[in-house]
Amino acid sequence: MMINIYDDINKLEATLRKTDEFANVKAAVESVKADPEALALFQSFRKIQLTLQEKQMKGEEIAGEELEYAQKTAQLAQSNEKIAQMLQAEMGLSQLIDEVNRVLIKPVQELYEGI
Amino acid sequence: MMINIYDDINKLEATLRKTDEFANVKAAVESVKADPEALALFQSFRKIQLTLQEKQMKGEEIAGEELEYAQKTAQLAQSNEKIAQMLQAEMGLSQLIDEVNRVLIKPVQELYEGI
Ligand SMILES: [Ca+2]
Ligand SMILES: [Ca+2]
Repeated sequence: MMINIYDDINKLEATLRKTDEFANVKAAVESVKADPEALALFQSFRKIQLTLQEKQMKGEEIAGEELEYAQKTAQLAQSNEKIAQMLQAEMGLSQLIDEVNRVLIKPVQELYEGI
Repeated sequence: MMINIYDDINKLEATLRKTDEFANVKAAVESVKADPEALALFQSFRKIQLTLQEKQMKGEEIAGEELEYAQKTAQLAQSNEKIAQMLQAEMGLSQLIDEVNRVLIKPVQELYEGI
Protein backbone atom coordinates (compact mmCIF):
# COMPACT_ATOMS: atom_id res chain seq x y z
CA MET A 1 0.00 0.00 0.00
CA MET A 2 1.33 3.44 -0.90
CA ILE A 3 0.66 5.75 2.04
CA ASN A 4 1.78 9.35 2.06
CA ILE A 5 2.82 9.81 5.67
CA TYR A 6 4.57 13.07 4.79
CA ASP A 7 1.23 14.85 4.47
CA ASP A 8 0.48 13.93 8.08
CA ILE A 9 3.97 14.86 9.28
CA ASN A 10 3.74 18.27 7.58
CA LYS A 11 0.25 18.86 8.97
CA LEU A 12 1.53 18.08 12.47
CA GLU A 13 4.47 20.44 11.99
CA ALA A 14 2.11 23.25 10.87
CA THR A 15 -0.07 22.64 13.93
CA LEU A 16 2.96 22.58 16.24
CA ARG A 17 3.81 26.11 15.02
CA LYS A 18 0.34 27.24 16.11
CA THR A 19 0.46 25.86 19.66
CA ASP A 20 0.75 28.00 22.78
CA GLU A 21 3.89 26.01 23.61
CA PHE A 22 5.56 27.17 20.40
CA ALA A 23 4.38 30.77 20.85
CA ASN A 24 5.74 30.76 24.41
CA VAL A 25 9.24 29.75 23.29
CA LYS A 26 9.15 32.31 20.46
CA ALA A 27 8.19 35.12 22.84
CA ALA A 28 10.73 34.01 25.47
CA VAL A 29 13.58 33.87 22.93
CA GLU A 30 12.69 37.35 21.63
CA SER A 31 12.64 38.63 25.19
CA VAL A 32 16.15 37.23 25.87
CA LYS A 33 17.42 38.60 22.55
CA ALA A 34 16.13 42.06 23.44
CA ASP A 35 17.92 42.12 26.82
CA PRO A 36 21.73 42.52 26.48
CA GLU A 37 22.37 41.22 30.02
CA ALA A 38 20.22 38.09 29.58
CA LEU A 39 21.65 37.51 26.11
CA ALA A 40 25.26 37.67 27.30
CA LEU A 41 24.50 35.33 30.22
CA PHE A 42 22.77 32.83 27.94
CA GLN A 43 25.60 32.93 25.42
CA SER A 44 28.31 32.19 28.02
CA PHE A 45 26.12 29.45 29.50
CA ARG A 46 25.69 27.82 26.09
CA LYS A 47 29.37 28.26 25.17
CA ILE A 48 30.68 26.41 28.24
CA GLN A 49 27.98 23.71 27.85
CA LEU A 50 29.07 23.06 24.26
CA THR A 51 32.75 22.99 25.28
CA LEU A 52 32.05 20.40 27.99
CA GLN A 53 29.89 18.29 25.66
CA GLU A 54 32.63 18.30 23.03
CA LYS A 55 35.25 17.20 25.59
CA GLN A 56 32.94 14.47 26.85
CA MET A 57 32.36 13.14 23.34
CA LYS A 58 36.10 13.11 22.66
CA GLY A 59 36.68 11.35 25.97
CA GLU A 60 38.85 14.28 27.18
CA GLU A 61 39.21 14.92 30.88
CA ILE A 62 37.28 17.83 32.37
CA ALA A 63 39.17 19.79 35.03
CA GLY A 64 37.45 20.40 38.39
CA GLU A 65 37.81 24.15 37.91
CA GLU A 66 36.17 24.00 34.52
CA LEU A 67 33.23 22.07 35.93
CA GLU A 68 32.91 24.58 38.76
CA TYR A 69 32.93 27.46 36.27
CA ALA A 70 30.24 25.70 34.22
CA GLN A 71 28.04 25.20 37.27
CA LYS A 72 28.40 28.85 38.29
CA THR A 73 27.59 30.03 34.78
CA ALA A 74 24.52 27.77 34.73
CA GLN A 75 23.35 29.09 38.11
CA LEU A 76 23.86 32.67 37.00
CA ALA A 77 21.96 32.10 33.75
CA GLN A 78 19.10 30.30 35.46
CA SER A 79 18.72 33.05 38.05
CA ASN A 80 18.00 35.52 35.25
CA GLU A 81 14.20 35.71 34.97
CA LYS A 82 14.16 35.93 31.18
CA ILE A 83 16.43 32.93 30.71
CA ALA A 84 14.53 30.96 33.35
CA GLN A 85 11.29 31.71 31.49
CA MET A 86 12.85 30.63 28.21
CA LEU A 87 14.10 27.34 29.68
CA GLN A 88 10.65 26.71 31.15
CA ALA A 89 8.99 27.42 27.80
CA GLU A 90 11.48 25.09 26.08
CA MET A 91 10.50 22.34 28.49
CA GLY A 92 6.82 22.73 27.61
CA LEU A 93 7.59 22.43 23.91
CA SER A 94 9.91 19.47 24.48
CA GLN A 95 7.16 17.68 26.38
CA LEU A 96 4.90 18.08 23.36
CA ILE A 97 7.53 16.58 21.05
CA ASP A 98 8.20 13.80 23.59
CA GLU A 99 4.47 13.08 23.55
CA VAL A 100 4.58 12.65 19.76
CA ASN A 101 7.41 10.15 20.18
CA ARG A 102 5.58 8.25 22.90
CA VAL A 103 2.49 7.94 20.69
CA LEU A 104 4.52 6.79 17.67
CA ILE A 105 6.74 4.38 19.61
CA LYS A 106 3.81 2.61 21.24
CA PRO A 107 2.58 0.66 18.16
CA VAL A 108 6.21 -0.28 17.46
CA GLN A 109 6.66 -1.65 20.99
CA GLU A 110 3.42 -3.57 20.64
CA LEU A 111 4.91 -5.42 17.66
CA TYR A 112 7.59 -6.82 19.98
CA GLU A 113 5.19 -7.95 22.69
CA GLY A 114 5.61 -11.60 23.51
CA ILE A 115 8.87 -12.03 21.65
CA MET B 1 -5.23 30.10 20.56
CA MET B 2 -6.60 26.67 21.44
CA ILE B 3 -5.16 24.16 18.99
CA ASN B 4 -5.83 20.44 19.22
CA ILE B 5 -2.50 18.99 18.22
CA TYR B 6 -3.57 15.57 19.52
CA ASP B 7 -5.84 15.08 16.50
CA ASP B 8 -2.81 15.48 14.25
CA ILE B 9 -0.62 13.24 16.42
CA ASN B 10 -3.26 10.49 16.42
CA LYS B 11 -3.77 10.83 12.66
CA LEU B 12 -0.01 10.44 12.15
CA GLU B 13 0.06 7.39 14.40
CA ALA B 14 -2.80 5.79 12.45
CA THR B 15 -0.96 6.46 9.18
CA LEU B 16 2.29 5.08 10.59
CA ARG B 17 0.48 1.80 11.24
CA LYS B 18 -0.46 1.66 7.54
CA THR B 19 3.03 2.20 6.14
CA ASP B 20 5.10 -0.47 4.42
CA GLU B 21 7.80 0.18 7.02
CA PHE B 22 5.41 -0.82 9.82
CA ALA B 23 4.10 -3.86 7.91
CA ASN B 24 7.69 -4.97 7.27
CA VAL B 25 8.56 -4.97 10.98
CA LYS B 26 5.31 -6.74 11.83
CA ALA B 27 5.98 -9.50 9.29
CA ALA B 28 9.64 -9.82 10.33
CA VAL B 29 8.75 -10.13 14.03
CA GLU B 30 6.13 -12.79 13.25
CA SER B 31 8.71 -14.64 11.19
CA VAL B 32 11.23 -14.64 14.08
CA LYS B 33 8.50 -15.67 16.56
CA ALA B 34 7.57 -18.63 14.35
CA ASP B 35 11.17 -19.91 14.16
CA PRO B 36 12.36 -21.46 17.47
CA GLU B 37 16.05 -21.17 16.50
CA ALA B 38 15.78 -17.49 15.50
CA LEU B 39 13.64 -16.73 18.56
CA ALA B 40 16.14 -18.31 20.98
CA LEU B 41 19.05 -16.46 19.33
CA PHE B 42 17.21 -13.15 19.48
CA GLN B 43 16.25 -13.67 23.11
CA SER B 44 19.83 -14.39 24.24
CA PHE B 45 21.05 -11.42 22.19
CA ARG B 46 18.53 -9.12 23.86
CA LYS B 47 19.17 -10.54 27.33
CA ILE B 48 22.91 -9.88 27.25
CA GLN B 49 22.32 -6.41 25.71
CA LEU B 50 19.98 -5.48 28.56
CA THR B 51 22.43 -6.82 31.16
CA LEU B 52 25.26 -4.72 29.73
CA GLN B 53 23.07 -1.62 29.48
CA GLU B 54 22.04 -2.01 33.11
CA LYS B 55 25.65 -2.35 34.25
CA GLN B 56 26.63 0.68 32.19
CA MET B 57 23.86 2.77 33.74
CA LYS B 58 24.90 1.72 37.24
CA GLY B 59 28.52 2.49 36.39
CA GLU B 60 29.51 -1.14 37.05
CA GLU B 61 32.56 -2.56 35.35
CA ILE B 62 32.03 -4.91 32.40
CA ALA B 63 34.44 -7.84 32.28
CA GLY B 64 36.35 -8.47 29.05
CA GLU B 65 34.88 -11.99 28.86
CA GLU B 66 31.35 -10.66 29.21
CA LEU B 67 31.92 -8.18 26.40
CA GLU B 68 33.36 -10.93 24.23
CA TYR B 69 30.32 -13.13 24.92
CA ALA B 70 28.01 -10.22 24.03
CA GLN B 71 29.82 -9.64 20.74
CA LYS B 72 29.66 -13.30 19.83
CA THR B 73 25.95 -13.47 20.68
CA ALA B 74 25.34 -10.35 18.55
CA GLN B 75 27.26 -11.82 15.61
CA LEU B 76 25.38 -15.09 15.91
CA ALA B 77 22.01 -13.31 16.05
CA GLN B 78 22.82 -11.06 13.10
CA SER B 79 23.97 -13.97 10.98
CA ASN B 80 20.47 -15.48 11.29
CA GLU B 81 18.58 -14.36 8.19
CA LYS B 82 15.29 -13.82 9.99
CA ILE B 83 16.83 -11.71 12.73
CA ALA B 84 18.90 -9.78 10.19
CA GLN B 85 15.72 -9.05 8.24
CA MET B 86 13.96 -7.92 11.42
CA LEU B 87 16.81 -5.56 12.36
CA GLN B 88 16.78 -4.14 8.82
CA ALA B 89 13.02 -3.62 8.97
CA GLU B 90 13.38 -1.91 12.37
CA MET B 91 15.92 0.45 10.86
CA GLY B 92 13.48 1.47 8.12
CA LEU B 93 10.78 2.22 10.68
CA SER B 94 13.22 4.10 12.93
CA GLN B 95 14.23 6.27 9.99
CA LEU B 96 10.60 7.24 9.51
CA ILE B 97 10.25 8.21 13.19
CA ASP B 98 13.59 10.07 13.03
CA GLU B 99 12.20 11.96 10.03
CA VAL B 100 9.19 13.04 12.11
CA ASN B 101 11.56 14.37 14.76
CA ARG B 102 13.70 16.20 12.22
CA VAL B 103 10.62 17.92 10.77
CA LEU B 104 9.31 18.90 14.22
CA ILE B 105 12.69 20.05 15.59
CA LYS B 106 13.38 22.34 12.63
CA PRO B 107 10.91 25.12 13.53
CA VAL B 108 12.17 24.96 17.13
CA GLN B 109 15.77 25.39 16.01
CA GLU B 110 14.71 28.30 13.83
CA LEU B 111 13.46 30.10 16.93
CA TYR B 112 17.01 30.07 18.31
CA GLU B 113 18.63 31.39 15.16
CA GLY B 114 20.74 34.48 15.83
CA ILE B 115 20.68 34.13 19.59
CA1 LIG C 1 18.08 41.28 35.59
CA1 LIG D 1 18.94 -20.97 10.10
